Formats: sequence, C-alpha cells, structure tokens
Amino acid sequence: MASDHSVRGEEVISNKQVILKDYVSGFPRESNLYLTTSNIKLKVPEEESGKDAVLVKNLYLSCDPFMRGRMQRDLPPGEPEQSSYSLGSPIVGYGVARVVDSRHSDFKKGDLVWGRTISWEEYSLITTPEYLFKINHTDDIPLSYYTGILGMPGIAAYFCFFDIGSPKEGDRVFVSSASGAVGQLVGQFAKLIGCYVVGSAGSKEKVELLKTKFGFDDAFNYKEEHDLDAALKRYFPEGIDIYFENVGGKMLDAVLLNMRYHGRIALCGMISQYNLEQPESVENLIAVLFKHIRMEGFSVAEYYDQYSQVLGFCSALY
Amino acid sequence: MASDHSVRGEEVISNKQVILKDYVSGFPRESNLYLTTSNIKLKVPEEESGKDAVLVKNLYLSCDPFMRGRMQRDLPPGEPEQSSYSLGSPIVGYGVARVVDSRHSDFKKGDLVWGRTISWEEYSLITTPEYLFKINHTDDIPLSYYTGILGMPGIAAYFCFFDIGSPKEGDRVFVSSASGAVGQLVGQFAKLIGCYVVGSAGSKEKVELLKTKFGFDDAFNYKEEHDLDAALKRYFPEGIDIYFENVGGKMLDAVLLNMRYHGRIALCGMISQYNLEQPESVENLIAVLFKHIRMEGFSVAEYYDQYSQVLGFCSALY
Repeated sequence: MASDHSVRGEEVISNKQVILKDYVSGFPRESNLYLTTSNIKLKVPEEESGKDAVLVKNLYLSCDPFMRGRMQRDLPPGEPEQSSYSLGSPIVGYGVARVVDSRHSDFKKGDLVWGRTISWEEYSLITTPEYLFKINHTDDIPLSYYTGILGMPGIAAYFCFFDIGSPKEGDRVFVSSASGAVGQLVGQFAKLIGCYVVGSAGSKEKVELLKTKFGFDDAFNYKEEHDLDAALKRYFPEGIDIYFENVGGKMLDAVLLNMRYHGRIALCGMISQYNLEQPESVENLIAVLFKHIRMEGFSVAEYYDQYSQVLGFCSALY
Repeated sequence: MASDHSVRGEEVISNKQVILKDYVSGFPRESNLYLTTSNIKLKVPEEESGKDAVLVKNLYLSCDPFMRGRMQRDLPPGEPEQSSYSLGSPIVGYGVARVVDSRHSDFKKGDLVWGRTISWEEYSLITTPEYLFKINHTDDIPLSYYTGILGMPGIAAYFCFFDIGSPKEGDRVFVSSASGAVGQLVGQFAKLIGCYVVGSAGSKEKVELLKTKFGFDDAFNYKEEHDLDAALKRYFPEGIDIYFENVGGKMLDAVLLNMRYHGRIALCGMISQYNLEQPESVENLIAVLFKHIRMEGFSVAEYYDQYSQVLGFCSALY
C-alpha cells in the first residue's frame, strides 16, 4: 500500500516502480531491474506538459514477450512501441488502470482504462494517452480480461489469425506457444470457425490445458520431441494450412517442411529468439517459394482502430 | 536438318532429343544428359491416346532455372510442373513451335504456339496441350519473344511484381539476378511506374546492360561485394520497399537487414540454392516479424488464365 502524505499543500503519494537498470543481452537477469519507491503528485501538472495528460492508478500490469525486445539497447529504428526502454525509468507495457486526474477531454476521474502506455509502477502520468482505451465496465467481465482476450492479446490473436492467416472452415492450423496469452485465443477462434487445431507448448500442464480447457484438437510438448518434423507429421499427415507463429527458430524450420501449398504463416512472435545473442538459422525457406506460401509479420499497433470489432466478437461469446 | 523418310507408307522423320540420363544432385554435369536421334511419325496417332493431341515442330527452346529443380529425383509432391523429369525421356520446358498435325479443336496445322509442354527435341507429340497458347503472329514481333517478355518470364515478372510486390510510385525496388529473363523485365516494369530500381548480377557485362540498356537506376556485381549488407546500404540508404527475389541464400539474408517497414518480398526464384546439397541458412528472418514484411512465393502456373493482360500491357509498349 502506498502511503499518502502532503508536500507544500499538494497531495503526494509514494509510488513503487520497477526500473530498468541495464540493457539486457542474452537472458534477462534479476539484476537488470530494481524496485524503487519515488513520490508522485496525484494531479496532472498545470503546465503545458500536462495538457492532454491523464494520471492513473495502475490495477493490472501485463508481462508480455515484446517487452524483452525493448530491454535491448540496439534495436532497429522503428515504431515507438519497439524502441528501447530508457535506463533508469520504469518499464512500460499493457495494463488496466483507473483515472485519478485528467486534463484530456476523453477521460475523467474514475474512468477505467486499458492501454499500452502503462508503466510498471503504482501510479503513472500518461502525457500522450493516444493508446488508452476506456473500459465500459457495466457488466461482470473481470477487469483482468483487458490484459487478455479484451486487450492487446485479443487484438493480436483476432487480426493476426483472421487477417494474415485467412482461415476457412476445415483448415489445418498449428499454433506454437499455444498456451500463451495470444496462442490460446487463436486456437479457440480457429475451433469456432471449424478448423482442425493443434498447439505446442513447453510443459505437460500446458498441454493438458490446451486439450481439456481450450478445446484444441490435440497438443504436444515440444520439449519432449527430439524431432519436430516427425512430431508435426504425426499431427498433420496432410500438412498445415496455417501456422500461427509465436516462437521462430527450429520450430519454424520444421513447420516449413510441413506446410501445404498456399499455406499462410502468420508471424506474431518469435519468442525462442529474443534471448539469443545470435539468431538461430532457418534452412527450409525455399519451401515458401516452392509451396507458394505467404508469410507476414503482424503489427498490433495497426489494428487499434478496429478494436471495437474484437470487443464485439469476444463479448458475444461471453 | 532432320532427314525425312517413309516407313510402311507413313511419313516418319528423325527427331533429335536431349535426354535425361541420371537425376542430378549438386551441379549438373554434361554427363547427366545425352543427345540421341529417334524417329517420329509426323501424324497425331489415330488411337484414343491421340485424341486432343497436337504434333509440333519446335522452333525455340528456352532454358529456365526451374528446369534444374525437375532434374532432381526427390521433389516434394506438388504441381505437375514441379515433378521430377522421367529418366530416359527428353527434358521439358517452355518454347515456341509450329503445329504440324492436330486432333485438338483449338489448334490446326500451321498454327504458331508457345507453352510449357515443349520437350527438348525437334518434334513433339503433345497429348495434353492445356498449357499451349496460340501466337497471333500478324505483326513483326520476333517469335523468340514468346520465350521471354511475351512468354512465361513475362507472366512471372508481371504478376509476381505487380500482384505480390504491390508496387507504387516512388518505391525502392531491389531485383536480384536482375539481368535474367524475369529480372530484366521487373526492372523495366518498375521504372515504368516510377520506382527507384537497383539490380544485382554476376558480371561486369550484365551490370553494364542493366544500367545502359534496361534502364535500372543502378546495378552492382554481387561477386565483387564481400559485404552484401554494406552494398545494399550504399544503394538503399533508406531501405528497400520491394525485394524481387530470384536468388535466395546470403543475398536474402542481407536484404532482410535492409527492408523497410511493410516491405514486400516477392519470391520468384532462389537460384543460388538449386545446386546445393544442403540449403544455405538464413539468420535474419526475425526482420519479417519486426518490420511487418510480407513474403510470398509465386506460382506462374496460377496466372496463365490472365495471360492476355500481360500480352496487352507489353504489346502496348512495343
């Protein structure tokens, strides 16, 4: 619990923060981050810098794979969401929060919001709330769902699967990292439209979840397979129409050998590569040519303006 | 010249043929093929086997990279055009021919045709002429053009560039194997719509051709570049929007480092890989994810029915 106190008559509150200490290479270590407590005024500044800003109390923080990328120093120039974190500042991700104060016309005190500009701290001043979405909390949907199916993972799963995957009834779909926030949704979406879906995951418990709770047709533990190509041939004797790619590396290489003609590879992540100093090589790329495969990298940021579509689709299932 | 003679009252003629002796692995050797002379009746058989067949005299044979693939024993199951050649039979490719006899309603004696079922021999009996196109030879366009811009390479260049590459004015386009039958056309098409185009080729003479005859903005000899990444950065300091891929391997790996956001990689060939026992590995595939690149393998066979579009486009330029 943060303790409230007053400095020069303004309400100031303690604010625990998770700070990036060093840029990460290889596997992140606990020492790359540290916990600190600073103070924050519970008011949006009156100055120009506070114009359009909102101050929020963070309720849920989501730990997502893309954050590993931003812990790296040298990233290719690109979208802001892919730029390196600032050393000495809290790391930033997706989360759910309640508005404490606002100078932005779209938000008022008490509003519940989710978005991608939530720092890992108790209270955040968000000066550019362009990627903050108001939660219409009139129903009994748990707020944490806005870090999952009704948040970024929902948008990613929905548009990466439907737009890039171009699925149709009867398609054979393979999802890697299938018990993850995105993968588990993709498998369920695929089942809804009549696909055959198999997922891979890294533990017996996750595999069980996929088969029993998430309704996948089948699932396997990739750590127990010494030959991924053989494993895929077991589950897809007639090949794969859609590969929803979350891992990259050796799995992608094995999948390429098992894709069907005109298969689609929807590239949503490559988590097996994020902690490597040198990327794993892929050898079977010629399959993309010979099998006329379409492979495409997905950017969730480009689909925020279509969020209501996901919300409608998923809410209807609830 | 083939010498005519008669056997049992039917006109029979000698027929030189290029026969595949052994399946090829690694670089093809001269000993993998041999030249023979057989005899052929200059009439489509009266039997059921000759129903819908045409007999042609071959005028031009085109030597295309895909033929190397078909010289291999073990090919993944797929389209007939990608199946292995039969040992002891002439190799088959694209060419131009004149109809000598026909039992197919679309063709009559004297018709000029081009297509993909032309065997490497003087006369061919084509029993399934579904991929044979009649040449409307009322103008002064050389017949050999139907093995190039008005034949398969034209269809490949046109649809792989326009459909998969999705080019627009101002796009930065890189073409590998740029002086080849397809590459040289892609560069010219790209210039026609206002792109900046650079090509790579494997000799000084080819590079000169690209710059002086084919109108590329620039070109380089990849054999003289020890660092392909650096070479591409020299020609594309702001990155590449469209990579028209003909070679694969190390060049593709370097291109991935230089692609722009939402770049397109139109995969038309990977000639650097066809003679390798083991494919070269690609390490920078994560760029497809991070830069939201679309990469797609092209199949010319799927565009034959739109051939008239290429014919119209290219004829208008003549």
